[in-house]
Amino acid sequence: MPRLHWEDFSPGQVTACGSRLITRAEIVAFAAEYDPQPMHLDEAAARASLFGGLVASGWHTCCVLMRMLSDDFLADASFLGAPGVEEVNWLAPIRPGERINARTTVLETRVSRSRPDVGFVKFRFELINAANQPVMSLIVSPMFGRRDANAAPGGDKASSVP
Amino acid sequence: MPRLHWEDFSPGQVTACGSRLITRAEIVAFAAEYDPQPMHLDEAAARASLFGGLVASGWHTCCVLMRMLSDDFLADASFLGAPGVEEVNWLAPIRPGERINARTTVLETRVSRSRPDVGFVKFRFELINAANQPVMSLIVSPMFGRRDANAAPGGDKASSVP
Repeated sequence: MPRLHWEDFSPGQVTACGSRLITRAEIVAFAAEYDPQPMHLDEAAARASLFGGLVASGWHTCCVLMRMLSDDFLADASFLGAPGVEEVNWLAPIRPGERINARTTVLETRVSRSRPDVGFVKFRFELINAANQPVMSLIVSPMFGRRDANAAPGGDKASSVP
Repeated sequence: MPRLHWEDFSPGQVTACGSRLITRAEIVAFAAEYDPQPMHLDEAAARASLFGGLVASGWHTCCVLMRMLSDDFLADASFLGAPGVEEVNWLAPIRPGERINARTTVLETRVSRSRPDVGFVKFRFELINAANQPVMSLIVSPMFGRRDANAAPGGDKASSVP
């Protein structure tokens, strides 16, 4: 039985969700498999790019965030996935050897109209580097099971950050 | 010297961008590394989920698209990455053994205001399964180098799908 259900998320909640060191090996391995651009793969080519050196793929950054959230609160939540992503902003490059921290802000919650046993939680997730600079922000509304699925009819219970 | 520059993309262009078989091994390997949810990792747990069986991670699907585009037209383009993603819709699950095809539609082009040697191309990318059903759509505006960077001052040349 997961500890966290839809009812446990409230607009305005801000929580830290772990920390991760991004290695050169990981940046290159991800790029070789999924995003083989010179700026993610090859130091010399990356030096000649806009970035002036090797940087992590933006898609890699999304995947790292997903893993950090999975190891943090999602591991103990009635998480049911998401129908998509509302926006991703790659704000600054992540370079080999950087440590990044994840921060989660709940923006809004609402019950599913079609499935009253399920609710959506709209989050802003941010990855922040050691200089306290956000390197990525991402807005997404995943679904969670409700603690008491028969508590109330859905569709009329919603709240959001003012 | 890449063949494709910003000038080669025009609103309304629709092109096929490759085909890929998604294997069970790949779905599970990706999930184990970046998105360890039971519905992506474990057949028995996945059968009990909303999906009734193992499905690919949505993030995996994004990464597969990026690889398909990299192997297709991006490999021969003055591609400079993207500042983010405008929207991702995971429309239908991808199951082990499915073959997916990529389709690219150019929605809009514009020159960068701050860097007249660079232009943005707004794309809708779609992945389509064997039943001709879209399984993912994604809107993103990557940057490309201009063929003749000194041709014209930027900011005033833009076109879009009416």
